[in-house]
Amino acid sequence: MRHENLPLLRALWRLVAACATTLLLASSVMAQADPLPSWNGGAAKSRVVAFVRAVTTEGSKDYVPPAERIAVFDNDGTLWAEQPMYVQLAFALDRVDALAPKHPDWKRKQPFRAAMSRDMKTLGEQGEKGLLELVMATHAGMTPEEFHAVVREWLATAQHPRFGRPYTETAFQPMLELLAYLRANGFKTYIVSGGGVEFMRVFAEKVYGVPPEQVIGSSIKTKYEVRRGVPTLVRLPEIDFIDDKAGKPVGIHKFIGKRPIAAFGNSDGDFEMLEYVSAAPGATLAMIVHHDDADREYAYDRKSAFGRLDRALDQAGKRGWTVISMKDDWRQVFPPTK
Amino acid sequence: MRHENLPLLRALWRLVAACATTLLLASSVMAQADPLPSWNGGAAKSRVVAFVRAVTTEGSKDYVPPAERIAVFDNDGTLWAEQPMYVQLAFALDRVDALAPKHPDWKRKQPFRAAMSRDMKTLGEQGEKGLLELVMATHAGMTPEEFHAVVREWLATAQHPRFGRPYTETAFQPMLELLAYLRANGFKTYIVSGGGVEFMRVFAEKVYGVPPEQVIGSSIKTKYEVRRGVPTLVRLPEIDFIDDKAGKPVGIHKFIGKRPIAAFGNSDGDFEMLEYVSAAPGATLAMIVHHDDADREYAYDRKSAFGRLDRALDQAGKRGWTVISMKDDWRQVFPPTK
Repeated sequence: MRHENLPLLRALWRLVAACATTLLLASSVMAQADPLPSWNGGAAKSRVVAFVRAVTTEGSKDYVPPAERIAVFDNDGTLWAEQPMYVQLAFALDRVDALAPKHPDWKRKQPFRAAMSRDMKTLGEQGEKGLLELVMATHAGMTPEEFHAVVREWLATAQHPRFGRPYTETAFQPMLELLAYLRANGFKTYIVSGGGVEFMRVFAEKVYGVPPEQVIGSSIKTKYEVRRGVPTLVRLPEIDFIDDKAGKPVGIHKFIGKRPIAAFGNSDGDFEMLEYVSAAPGATLAMIVHHDDADREYAYDRKSAFGRLDRALDQAGKRGWTVISMKDDWRQVFPPTK
Repeated sequence: MRHENLPLLRALWRLVAACATTLLLASSVMAQADPLPSWNGGAAKSRVVAFVRAVTTEGSKDYVPPAERIAVFDNDGTLWAEQPMYVQLAFALDRVDALAPKHPDWKRKQPFRAAMSRDMKTLGEQGEKGLLELVMATHAGMTPEEFHAVVREWLATAQHPRFGRPYTETAFQPMLELLAYLRANGFKTYIVSGGGVEFMRVFAEKVYGVPPEQVIGSSIKTKYEVRRGVPTLVRLPEIDFIDDKAGKPVGIHKFIGKRPIAAFGNSDGDFEMLEYVSAAPGATLAMIVHHDDADREYAYDRKSAFGRLDRALDQAGKRGWTVISMKDDWRQVFPPTK
């Protein structure tokens, strides 16, 4: 530090301190605006607001310092629509069609055979593992950059079959507001999904405001190599990690290394994540998006795309988890079309 | 937004705008102070400053938006001393002693036999894999929280045998300044080390200002379970990921999902990381800490704790990587003792 700067710095410091006070006042006025306008008043909304107030109020017994304010969100069915099928499955099916000419054996081999004929019943019977096999097999053999380009191109043109809008616009408006509200209150928001991490990383920042390094998902292995003089990674057709069920707390620990204090899910695949987060010391928030709105989205209740919502729903009351009724708690489901 | 607040908000907004100008002025004055006082003037320091200026100057051809400003640092030998042995190895050896009464077979089994007799030559011959086996075996069978407590307790009392100070104070002062300087310029700083991630997560935030979620390292598997009603993770004696050599770019991709633009290492174990980062489009910075200072630290030159520094040193010039001479480039090696 040059000494001749010190008096100037002191004067500046006083100004900065005054500014900080002003900013605090401004933010307190701003806070009076409803940060969750797409949520109807009710237990779910009140629970969110009370939790955020409790953990952000210095001096309160539930106060949590910003570095520990971690919130984790399942993706499919929690942040965006998962019906009539996982978006990544729709992508994989289109990708199977595109790659099929190079793989004549797929006609005789599950889950590819079912994929090519859009035989969703047989595909469903392959379970999450078969599904991931399909997804991974159609996603490998290229660099992450090449894969991102394929996904980006697909997302730019593909449309949700019922809502007639890009999949990226089937994100739930109330959840987008919730993500933003938590971040405005010092939370770091993560996606923790059974879906493929590289698929989600393409759109998570733009759609959810969640950067690539805060997306946790299932993955295939990658290998480092220098290809024709260019150092790169190559995606291998081999599963590395399944970020589902008991894998979710494992993934959270692996990637974040601290226990989150808020978790959001919509199926029994999220049960362990909700359970793990709820067991954190201090105040926690665990919520389940319940699909009970046939008019505006879907009402599949205790079914999920490839699983169930039984255990989590049955135990929600006892465990203090809040069930969000899409029908009653959400004023609006989707964002305005762009 | 409530309408009656609008005039107040407008007034506040003008104040905030004035504050922003003041803050900019303050930061510009601050910028005149040397952010790297422990670095001697010379090629290495100039390279760092020129790089940071280039990527942070809006409108410059090398400008990089803040979200893409990722810097990755090896730990052992790059951020802190790795001689006479890896700090984590010193921890593991003490841990072997503590656990030995429960493991009578260790007396007849490598690498434990060598560990217990501090036979460093034989231990070295077990290679990185043997070393990790030792580390992992002594680190498993407990929850992450329990492991953190053991490490924290050890770090509080263990001392570096030559420098007579806690290991956490053998961090290199110039690198601490470099970490802070990069962060002050919008960089997100990550550790990417062959060391165990949970070991580093205990002290990385306090010592380096790097939070747990920005520590990438080697890991053992964990398993989620509900133990006597308490949902928890348990560390398994099974290697999950080795974050070394070609594993470093793989780890970077897995955890960050973007290619960093700056990398710092000190051995051939960092070669692929330096190579991968240098191949990013646009301006990049790759630096190698060269241990050539027998008086103040160590002068092991082309040897590293369990590896070599040959390939990276030989190719540094050709590849535009900067070699940092600890002896010539650093005015001070360690921080003042606390």
